[in-house]
Formats: sequence, structure tokens, C-alpha cells
Amino acid sequence: MKQQLTVIKIGGNVINQNDTLEHFLTDFAKISEKKILIHGGGKLATQIAYNLGVETQMIDGRRVTNAEMLKVATMVYAGYINKNIVAQLQCMGCNAIGLTGADLNTIKAHKRKTGEIDFGFVGDVDEVNSKAINNLLNINAIPVFTALTHNQKGQLLNTNADTIAQSIAVRMCKLYNVKLIYCFEKPGVLTDVNNENSYIENLSKSTYNKLINKGIIAEGMKAKLENCFTALHKGVDNILICKSAEIAKKMPVGTHISIK
Amino acid sequence: MKQQLTVIKIGGNVINQNDTLEHFLTDFAKISEKKILIHGGGKLATQIAYNLGVETQMIDGRRVTNAEMLKVATMVYAGYINKNIVAQLQCMGCNAIGLTGADLNTIKAHKRKTGEIDFGFVGDVDEVNSKAINNLLNINAIPVFTALTHNQKGQLLNTNADTIAQSIAVRMCKLYNVKLIYCFEKPGVLTDVNNENSYIENLSKSTYNKLINKGIIAEGMKAKLENCFTALHKGVDNILICKSAEIAKKMPVGTHISIK
Repeated sequence: MKQQLTVIKIGGNVINQNDTLEHFLTDFAKISEKKILIHGGGKLATQIAYNLGVETQMIDGRRVTNAEMLKVATMVYAGYINKNIVAQLQCMGCNAIGLTGADLNTIKAHKRKTGEIDFGFVGDVDEVNSKAINNLLNINAIPVFTALTHNQKGQLLNTNADTIAQSIAVRMCKLYNVKLIYCFEKPGVLTDVNNENSYIENLSKSTYNKLINKGIIAEGMKAKLENCFTALHKGVDNILICKSAEIAKKMPVGTHISIK
Repeated sequence: MKQQLTVIKIGGNVINQNDTLEHFLTDFAKISEKKILIHGGGKLATQIAYNLGVETQMIDGRRVTNAEMLKVATMVYAGYINKNIVAQLQCMGCNAIGLTGADLNTIKAHKRKTGEIDFGFVGDVDEVNSKAINNLLNINAIPVFTALTHNQKGQLLNTNADTIAQSIAVRMCKLYNVKLIYCFEKPGVLTDVNNENSYIENLSKSTYNKLINKGIIAEGMKAKLENCFTALHKGVDNILICKSAEIAKKMPVGTHISIK
């Protein structure tokens, strides 16, 4: 029987507040099965960029990454945020190791082709190296990935953390029963963005299609959910979208996503 | 019989120039035995600090590390420099993994006690986790350490890269025949700092003592050499101080250090 593996992605809101992050990491450290954490950059990247005089440009919620912005992302994501998370987890007895997709060639990507919008040094994932990740899990390391990959030609690439989490979860489900959890600031997928109580407890593909037709799913959530259904189709066992404080609970409150 | 392990520390001059660094990494990638790389921060940390309005203070050639400077060091050392080195090595077929001492708890240190000078968040190494490092070597990972450790209480600490290299070399020599190489801008230990041809080819402890008595060894080199003799006494097989371009050569030019 396959072992359990929990893959958790935390959003910017968890990283941006020290107490929320510490609370989350305390809960994460307590998860007894094998686990992987993925985090993005949060607002610190924008702030450091501003302080360094690098202009931040966002299109459709995605950061446009010119050479200077990639430098900032590499410093903030892989340096400051990643290593502070690792140091905190180590203090909690969790044997963390901080990674980009370049480390051990864990995630290979290619620079997104320039279409109508040039996102710059942004990567689309080609391949997750499950063997390298599994080697780390087998020496009892807890991988902590940040939102950077590489093209295997020496170029780092800014890469969406949701996509990294999904790609890792899909690739690792050949070896493990994988539970994928997206932690963000809302209690789950909402039917009314202004009402936190309107979260959907169980979201099947057919319910999702109905809600899409009614125009109820917010635009930003659509891409995330499409990713989720793809992951389920590719073998991920279990997906949950919830607040970070839920991960420690036996019966976490949030949106449980299923195909049927 | 023990396997060979080469531990190489590169100085700021190697990092500061892209072509020198690329040349060095190409040579490093070709070393066939197991290997570990250690690097510091170079002048980029000073430049980023300046751009962010963080004042750089050096005492006796060491950076004073207040909270803001530690943030810069974490961003530049562990982020920008470390991950770009890793991406470049991966491009050269070298399976690099970037590390601080916090990752896998590889290097535990304590914050230096405040004496006459308060160096701030500077760490003195307590313990190198040879088991964790060996686990990485055994999965064919090439560890690339930057000059940061942690205190296992959640605090990262800026730590001298020479000391990290020496501490790793000493600890790993229980498992390997360890060769320790310090690459810097001079061809070796000079008897005349203004003459590059004055490098000493073989430096024994007795020769070193004589040169010290004559006042010939420069102050900055003294600490490095004391470190070297300590490492040799503790079992490191072989120490070389040289220019980075020498590491690929069968008969590298530089100062070979020995106890006798």
C-alpha cells in the first residue's frame, strides 16, 4: 500500500503575517505523514522591489518578471522567506530543506513564450523530478519549495506556486497517496465573495460546471479549480481549499474537491 | 578505504566577476569525486544594502550584522548568489543543491557573545551534521553552502565562509579523505603582498612559525592559516590555497599546507 503524502501550498496572506505564519508552521510541523510545503513570495517582494526602485507590474494577477524583478524574486522567495521558514521549522523539530526547482533539478520549466503579453522570466512547468524529491523524503527531509524553477540551461524562472504544488502532487501520486491542500485567506470556495459563510463544503466537477454556468465562481478562483480537477483526474486522491488554521484539524473546514 | 571528498571555498573575487565564476563552476562541475562548495556574499550584499539604505559596517574585515543586514545577507547569499550558482551548475550536469546551515540542520551555531565588539547576528559554528551532509552525498547531491547557519531556535546567523569550509572538512574527514581548497584572488600565501610570484609552494607549520616571527605573514592571512593547521591536526588530509582557475589542474599551482 502506498504511503500518505501531504502537499500544502500557502498563499501570500499566510506569509505576510508573522503570527499567522508561525501558527501555520507549528501545525505543519505536527503532521506525522510525509509532507511537502510550497510557498510564494507575498508582499515582501513588492516592497523590496519598490525600495530598490524596481517597478512592479501585474497582469491578470501575475507578476511580470523582467531581469531586475527576477533578481528580487530570487532574493526574497528563495532567500529571505524560504530560509526563514526553514529555520523556523527546524526550531519546531521539522527537518526542513529549502528548495527551488533548480536544486537537484527538481522542477524543470521553460520560459513562457511571448504572446500578447510578455511575462518575462516566467516559467511553465515541464517536469517534476519525482525521483529526486523522493530521495529527499527517504532521508526524512521535508522539502520546502519556493515559486522558482529553472530551464536546465542556467536560467531561473518565476513560476506560479499553485501550479508547482499541483505539478508536484500529480507527479508524486505515482509513489504516494497524495493529499493536496491550498491554504488561503478565505474558508474555501465562496458562492458569495462578500460572505465567508458561503463556502462550498463539497465541490464536485458537475457542481462546479453548474456554478460556472451561473457565473458564480470568481475569475481568480477558476484557474485554481481547473488546476484542481486536472490534478484529481491525474490521480491526486484528495484536494482541500481552506484557511491555514484548518490543516491541524481532523475534520478541516473548507472546500473538499472531488471529481464525482 | 575511504572515498575522496573535495571541499572548496570560493572567495568574493570569484563571485564578483561573472566570467571568473563561470570558469570556476565549469572546472568544479568536472571534478569526478564527491565534492562540496562553500561561498560567501561578495560585493553584491554591500551594493544591495546600499541600495536599500542599510549601512554596511565592517570591523576587522568582518561584516557587522544587525537585523536589516541579516535580511540583506539572507536575500543575497542564500537567494540570489546561491540559487544562480545552483542553476549554473545544473546546466553543467552537476547535481547541485543550495544550502544554508538551517537546511536539514546541517550547521548549528550560536550567536557570538557580545564582547568589546557587537557583531550582531553573527554565528560561531557549534556542530556540523555530517550524517545529513553524507545523506545528501549518498543521493549524488552536490551541496553548495552559503555563509549562513542557524541556532536551531529559529534564528539565522551570518557565518564566516572560511570557518564553515574548515568545519565541514574537519567533520567529514571521519567518513572521507578530505581535500580542502581555498580559492581566492592571489596565487597562494605570499611572502611579499605586492609580488604575486612570491607565493610559497609548500607551507609547513614550522615554516609558518618562522614567517610569523619575521612578521612576513599578512594579518588577514594569519586567521586563515591558523584555521588550516587546526583542520590538518583534526584529520583533513590536504589543504591548498590557490586561484580558482587552478582547481581543474592535475598539479595546481598554489600554497600546499602541511603539518610537517
